[in-house]
Amino acid sequence: MLMEKGNEGRGVALLLGFLAFFALAFGGEDDGVSVWPMPKSESHGSQTLSLSKDFKLTTRGSNYPDGSGLLKEAFWRMVDVVQVNHIVDGRVPSSMVLAGLNVAISSADDVLNFGVDESYKLDVPALGGLIYANVEAQTVYGALHALETFSQLCHFNFDERIVELHSAPWSIFDEPRFPYRGLLIDTSRHYLPLPVMKVVIDSMTYSKLNVLHWHIVDEQSFPLEIPSFPRLWVGSYSYSERYTVANALEIVQYAQRRGINVLAEIDVPGHSHSWGVGYPDLWPSSDCNQPLDVSKEFTFEVIEGILSGKIHFLVDIVVSVFYALSQNFSKIFNFKFVHLGGDEVNTSKFEHLLLLLTGCIMAKLGCWSDTPHVKEWLNKHGMTESDGYKYFVLRAQKIAISHGYEVINWEETFDNFGKQLSPETVVHNWLGDGVAEKVVAMGLRCIVSNQDKWYLDHLDATWEGFYMNEPLTNITIPEQQKRVIGGEVCMWGEQIDASDIEQTIWPRAAAAAERLWTPIEKLASDPTLVTGRLARFRCLLNQRGIAAAPLAGPGRAPPVGPGSCLKQ
Amino acid sequence: MLMEKGNEGRGVALLLGFLAFFALAFGGEDDGVSVWPMPKSESHGSQTLSLSKDFKLTTRGSNYPDGSGLLKEAFWRMVDVVQVNHIVDGRVPSSMVLAGLNVAISSADDVLNFGVDESYKLDVPALGGLIYANVEAQTVYGALHALETFSQLCHFNFDERIVELHSAPWSIFDEPRFPYRGLLIDTSRHYLPLPVMKVVIDSMTYSKLNVLHWHIVDEQSFPLEIPSFPRLWVGSYSYSERYTVANALEIVQYAQRRGINVLAEIDVPGHSHSWGVGYPDLWPSSDCNQPLDVSKEFTFEVIEGILSGKIHFLVDIVVSVFYALSQNFSKIFNFKFVHLGGDEVNTSKFEHLLLLLTGCIMAKLGCWSDTPHVKEWLNKHGMTESDGYKYFVLRAQKIAISHGYEVINWEETFDNFGKQLSPETVVHNWLGDGVAEKVVAMGLRCIVSNQDKWYLDHLDATWEGFYMNEPLTNITIPEQQKRVIGGEVCMWGEQIDASDIEQTIWPRAAAAAERLWTPIEKLASDPTLVTGRLARFRCLLNQRGIAAAPLAGPGRAPPVGPGSCLKQ
Repeated sequence: MLMEKGNEGRGVALLLGFLAFFALAFGGEDDGVSVWPMPKSESHGSQTLSLSKDFKLTTRGSNYPDGSGLLKEAFWRMVDVVQVNHIVDGRVPSSMVLAGLNVAISSADDVLNFGVDESYKLDVPALGGLIYANVEAQTVYGALHALETFSQLCHFNFDERIVELHSAPWSIFDEPRFPYRGLLIDTSRHYLPLPVMKVVIDSMTYSKLNVLHWHIVDEQSFPLEIPSFPRLWVGSYSYSERYTVANALEIVQYAQRRGINVLAEIDVPGHSHSWGVGYPDLWPSSDCNQPLDVSKEFTFEVIEGILSGKIHFLVDIVVSVFYALSQNFSKIFNFKFVHLGGDEVNTSKFEHLLLLLTGCIMAKLGCWSDTPHVKEWLNKHGMTESDGYKYFVLRAQKIAISHGYEVINWEETFDNFGKQLSPETVVHNWLGDGVAEKVVAMGLRCIVSNQDKWYLDHLDATWEGFYMNEPLTNITIPEQQKRVIGGEVCMWGEQIDASDIEQTIWPRAAAAAERLWTPIEKLASDPTLVTGRLARFRCLLNQRGIAAAPLAGPGRAPPVGPGSCLKQ
Repeated sequence: MLMEKGNEGRGVALLLGFLAFFALAFGGEDDGVSVWPMPKSESHGSQTLSLSKDFKLTTRGSNYPDGSGLLKEAFWRMVDVVQVNHIVDGRVPSSMVLAGLNVAISSADDVLNFGVDESYKLDVPALGGLIYANVEAQTVYGALHALETFSQLCHFNFDERIVELHSAPWSIFDEPRFPYRGLLIDTSRHYLPLPVMKVVIDSMTYSKLNVLHWHIVDEQSFPLEIPSFPRLWVGSYSYSERYTVANALEIVQYAQRRGINVLAEIDVPGHSHSWGVGYPDLWPSSDCNQPLDVSKEFTFEVIEGILSGKIHFLVDIVVSVFYALSQNFSKIFNFKFVHLGGDEVNTSKFEHLLLLLTGCIMAKLGCWSDTPHVKEWLNKHGMTESDGYKYFVLRAQKIAISHGYEVINWEETFDNFGKQLSPETVVHNWLGDGVAEKVVAMGLRCIVSNQDKWYLDHLDATWEGFYMNEPLTNITIPEQQKRVIGGEVCMWGEQIDASDIEQTIWPRAAAAAERLWTPIEKLASDPTLVTGRLARFRCLLNQRGIAAAPLAGPGRAPPVGPGSCLKQ
């Protein structure tokens, strides 16, 4: 009969229990490294350190002034996520105590943009009186990644009620394989409230994704305020399903302070029905409402107005100057790139019918050639419908370029007239595999999002498939490999809203996040080798309040029955 | 061509757009009351007030000292949820401005327990220089409900960028129909991290639910620390899927400060396999591990130890005194009631087989009569297996009662030996309808959770069914009606974890919340009459970061396609 008679029996029993569960929780792959994504290089030991209850941030040897508190806030967020599921009320031992984290950053600059140095070194010694972990990074954004990695080394000891760091000493050097590691969200098919977008941004930092591709508007709704054309957001679903310019700025700043760039997409000329709800002139006709009317100067004035924020109506001079300065799209969306879409443009009802017949359900109605004044304009300019599509895309590109952007376009633009695209164009591959190799061979840059593997709305796309999708497939020449700037998983919104976005993104996006971060030689050749570590990462997400789905089953499937988070 | 030539055209167009969307968002049922649940009585006007950017809490005429800041924190939480999706950067007009909210509470006491007065009056005048809304309540918990109602009267004006309150003046008197309005969560079938539990608690306040029924342990896992029997939580799924006593205290206090009682359930003698992982003596035998072994005094020592926190091993005296005082279960779980389960107890393999044959898939294996020493004990005491079940339940009841609790038991205890239950027992109906009437006719109290309508894990149970489930069906004598203390929706955890709990609870739990709060004469006779208002409440939940599912379709179904939150 297991009556407790004294401390010793309890102690031994508890120790055995602890070891058993520790093995269960952390055994498996590798030799106990439970960080996701896997760092570029690491070594570790077998010591356990306790975190001081007064765990500090220090910045000895740092050049970064942290004027806006970006680093300090990230440090306290890190301490919070480590403790969010626990009450740390035990007694910290007097030795092997980690007193704090010293962060030394070389660059005083914290302007975030494409290509910023995201590397870091993280060292956790296992000797010394007052032990400090050390971070060295070129930029604060590298340091933020170091903090995330550090947080994943921490574990709560349920017997001692303190936070511990296992397997010290650690020596980690880490940097991403690709500079562009994106997640697309779609706020046109379903409006996403700001708290939801912020949770998504927070969750991205946990797997070191660094670009939020905000597909803002599309056929179904236009939710964003555009001050220079204030009736555009009459195309929102309802009065309240809208983003003011201030909301957009808030999202961008929220993301940037977490090391995440926001890529705005204004998809033209297709996917644009919603633009004409407030400005019917943008529709070729009342029964043909996408693509946008290529024959009107007004169409391009609207695009110019969106991207520049230039005011087109007479208002109080003071207000307009203030507005123009503060509401300028390119000042809010100050990522190096803007995405101008250009996908799925069918210019005639006949093409549409053909696509429907061939079963391509993604076809959108297009009707330029069925609309007299547009047909006339095309004829006048000696253009076929396809020429009109090309003209539109290239003209929109020029507008964006004139406001300092480099342009990303969906791959149909490349497939149809790749040689005429601006040479700085980044081609966003989505239709299937085998495209990136053609893009980079032509000298253009590429982002990989092939839909058979990296579309999150495809619920039958498994996390294993996400993990194994290699962006550099068939690309062997180093110069061409560099033109693949990265990849992106796409959370299209047709069947996603605030109720289910988190579990449709996670954990599958994490599998892609490792593919995009970790050096190829450190990736698992067989995804089953990482099941345990991804399950632990998924459970870590849950513990941080992110509704990541079980690994088993298709995307966002519920757990099949009772069980441990680590095994589902 | 709709070029913007001046403010006037813009103004008219925007006004028309605003009115159209306002009608879309707020039209339909009633006369513009968009509060959920519907208050007991209200009258309103047609004035619009603007909230001051310096919106204040005042407490003129209040007896409540708010020493712990409970009211102040609730006020700022309310201001936060009103603004969470918006940047309020517009200019507030100089008249018709709501400067603040005055909250006058009669009682200085803020001990929360069953039956506390939850009534409130909320008045929002539409005249005056500095306009204050007024709350009067008996207790701070009534005032918290008033704050929630007030928050639902506030709307963001997207054109003026300020918060407004429509349809003033308001005069609301409100109080719940039933004092017990519960939600069950199950942390045994799946561990729920603390952040997830806290979000669930927050979401309950939005629809004025007031009891969190925490089904802590069950067959599959035992996640809670029990200091007097420290090996019990070896039955957790894993080392990290556990709640320390400090975690439990944190959850209880988090809930209480929001007006929500926490009902702990320790289900005995069935549903208890996990207890024996750490203490195999609790199992009748190694191949019969539930119900708990009725023949051993040890079994009841463990139950006593759980409910009392009494230490059973020798430790440092200082530690044990401190521990006993602070970790005492009945001090942490200080709700008037404790739930002792008692459901689905099959005491023989034969019974189990019979139930399987009759298709009752919920049958759990029971094996008292198949275990020699238990059979011997039963014989010695002249008991059948059923007598043993009754003996167990009544003895467990006595233990709980000796620690100051009133007991809630699942209905099988009533169905099998209702007359022998302690007369203070509250019977928790779940098997089906038609039970409550029998319980109250026998003089016992009842909580209604009939599984055909109020089980949230039954995904085919529609929100309309939740709304129409009337706890007082066939109960007409007022004295008997009072014995139905309320009802509860049950979020069993077999196929629920952190990834999908919110959308499986909401919005269906809200439909039940109105059934339990609103006077019966104000409930809709036809649920389609409340579709619009419930859709708006669901969208409000989304805007507050709660992953409430679309109304359409079965429980937690994704949206079928693109569309407005208000229409799905």
